Amino acid sequence: MELTENQIAFREGMSRMGAAVNLLTTDGPAGKHGLVASAVCSVTDSPPTVLVCINRGSFVHDKFLRNGALCVNVLASQHQDLCNTFARYVEGVDRFAQGTWTTLATGSPVLTDSNVALDCRIGSVLEQGTHSVMFCEVQGVHLSARPGAGLVYFSRDFHHLHSSAS
Amino acid sequence: MELTENQIAFREGMSRMGAAVNLLTTDGPAGKHGLVASAVCSVTDSPPTVLVCINRGSFVHDKFLRNGALCVNVLASQHQDLCNTFARYVEGVDRFAQGTWTTLATGSPVLTDSNVALDCRIGSVLEQGTHSVMFCEVQGVHLSARPGAGLVYFSRDFHHLHSSAS
Repeated sequence: MELTENQIAFREGMSRMGAAVNLLTTDGPAGKHGLVASAVCSVTDSPPTVLVCINRGSFVHDKFLRNGALCVNVLASQHQDLCNTFARYVEGVDRFAQGTWTTLATGSPVLTDSNVALDCRIGSVLEQGTHSVMFCEVQGVHLSARPGAGLVYFSRDFHHLHSSAS
Repeated sequence: MELTENQIAFREGMSRMGAAVNLLTTDGPAGKHGLVASAVCSVTDSPPTVLVCINRGSFVHDKFLRNGALCVNVLASQHQDLCNTFARYVEGVDRFAQGTWTTLATGSPVLTDSNVALDCRIGSVLEQGTHSVMFCEVQGVHLSARPGAGLVYFSRDFHHLHSSAS
């Protein structure tokens, strides 16, 4: 598919909007899966809700929907390798062999040393162009006791954010 | 309103998800207004679409809807003062006196040295709890020729992201 001028400018523009790097995970009847995503956004705290945008062409898109649940693991600077493992597909590699995992209410994999993990049930889903917007109802919040530097993607590169407390 | 334990954890959790600092602007029958927002998210590039989440209790919420258009100005490190000007309400102060502005198709104020500005018509709007999710159809993209360091909010503080090119 040839991109229009507006689409090329849009992609360049979005590369200039820094975003946290998140690992979305799920487990259930459709199996255990993970996807790196930056299109995650807080919606409201009444009740606690986030949304995630996932390409419908992605292999894991339907897995998330079938499991009806996902965990948003907000990655820290020490997770850049893990992030690359999930971003690349290598046949036969168990991506969850790396990292330490637990579960909360939904059974979705929770990365124990993520800066924060939001365990969610997927509520309403809205199709928008190539993507689904999944509204995720937060069932539980796992807060790391010692959060690491934040991992952010900006200008097609990783950046590490050191908080004054860390 | 007393917050539940889950809401408190959610707010703390969201402070650990770094996000670009954006200035949403609008102009039209409801007047010229601006709002600092981090809840902005890329949805799809077919056609180019972003979403913004705005508290329905905010003074400017209905102004955006009445004007039917907004510009997402992605701020750079040099805009921290401007950001504070828009975040604080001071009676009689013209917030647009600071900065250099232009317009594109919709007439929403475009900050000329923003790292990128997305001029949008507001399409569908979805109410979710306390907030409206506005799906914004990108009509034009203003790319600064020399983008500055990215401005990101993380751990209740501003951070500056220097790209390898800047």
